[in-house]
Amino acid sequence: MNSKPIIVLVRPQLGQNIGKAARAMLNFGLTELRLVAPRDGWPNPEAGPAASGADEVLEQASLFDTAQQAVADCSLVFASTVRRRDLVMPVVGPEEMAKRIADAPGRIAILFGPERSGLETEEVALANAIVTVPINPQFGSLNLAQAVILLAYECSRNAALSQPTVKETEARAPHGELEGLIDQLNSELDAKGYFHPPSRTQATKNTLRTIFTKPGWSSREMKAVRGIIRALAGPARNRGKT
Amino acid sequence: MNSKPIIVLVRPQLGQNIGKAARAMLNFGLTELRLVAPRDGWPNPEAGPAASGADEVLEQASLFDTAQQAVADCSLVFASTVRRRDLVMPVVGPEEMAKRIADAPGRIAILFGPERSGLETEEVALANAIVTVPINPQFGSLNLAQAVILLAYECSRNAALSQPTVKETEARAPHGELEGLIDQLNSELDAKGYFHPPSRTQATKNTLRTIFTKPGWSSREMKAVRGIIRALAGPARNRGKT
Repeated sequence: MNSKPIIVLVRPQLGQNIGKAARAMLNFGLTELRLVAPRDGWPNPEAGPAASGADEVLEQASLFDTAQQAVADCSLVFASTVRRRDLVMPVVGPEEMAKRIADAPGRIAILFGPERSGLETEEVALANAIVTVPINPQFGSLNLAQAVILLAYECSRNAALSQPTVKETEARAPHGELEGLIDQLNSELDAKGYFHPPSRTQATKNTLRTIFTKPGWSSREMKAVRGIIRALAGPARNRGKT
Repeated sequence: MNSKPIIVLVRPQLGQNIGKAARAMLNFGLTELRLVAPRDGWPNPEAGPAASGADEVLEQASLFDTAQQAVADCSLVFASTVRRRDLVMPVVGPEEMAKRIADAPGRIAILFGPERSGLETEEVALANAIVTVPINPQFGSLNLAQAVILLAYECSRNAALSQPTVKETEARAPHGELEGLIDQLNSELDAKGYFHPPSRTQATKNTLRTIFTKPGWSSREMKAVRGIIRALAGPARNRGKT
């Protein structure tokens, strides 16, 4: 299930922050924005430029008088705030929130309070759980757009779990190619008188093997390294001719 | 192991964004900031106000001329960028990056490019892997501070979870040693006429760099490889004598 939460900004103060929140949302595929009594009215001319192209989110934003109305159709609601002493309710981190969102049927909302003061107690109480981003206790300074982007990221992260993860770009070469490289290296080094004294030869060869096994080179890389060994060991090529 | 990466901003344009990055870092407990040739010099009076109190990060920031110098003491380097067609190197998501950071001995850096243009190919090639935040393909618009906060968040997230895991047996060599090896290899190969035609030289050097960055060799291994290069490129030693 790939449920996408609705972002609800309660009494946001600055149009700029509404725009930044829209941009943060769209970066992680969230498109539904609800605004509860924005201080400077709506639409707000300062929102557009700050959205850096996320205009569709702003244009489709819907307006409500109260947080309660804004979440009326939602069956799962989170309140983004620090832990509240005045309320006994579950507190989850972003990861747990994303997990619950992914598993939930119905509509889901995340409430964010005004920049300066945060959500009122009554608004937090609308939620099923508080979500708190664990930040540096000596320096808690997360602004509205940052809180939105971190929670939006966490939701998309979870949605992406079902996708193939990013792989290393090239497969390791088959072991036979590694053997070929090591043989070549040993024979070129032998020709240069590298393995000396004879009593140490096997130990040195073992070391070389571990060093050249470690990279996990692809066939392409292996081929390049063999070319390098050949070039280093051979005579200088005359670059002037053909 | 709670390894904290160094954040390296390469040629950042706006002082404001340096401040925002510092704030994003400190929110998740990262304190070491390195600046490579900031466009408007350093210190920059616009950075402080944007840092919203993260002044200690700005005050301790250190200044470098090149990205290469900025990561010289680091044994694990990530480049924050989209996938590059011009380089064959591992691409990981933020979660995998955080996992590798948690397991790594030695110093770790994450490189971020200039706001408008991003990192140059040669700078990306300094890294062990590219880290890409998976964003909405129809709307990719992550700014510098947002990229920093998401990766910093992911690292702190992991640090909180992280239990002792199986460690690498030997620490990766600092990046400066890798540079020494690559310099030696380039100069020996150049003497052999390997870099031909000249129009392909830079691309070939980028490929060599990624191939020799991949292994994550320790100082001991690095030294052995340098000995091998020397032996291959030099004249045959007469084993009969002394």
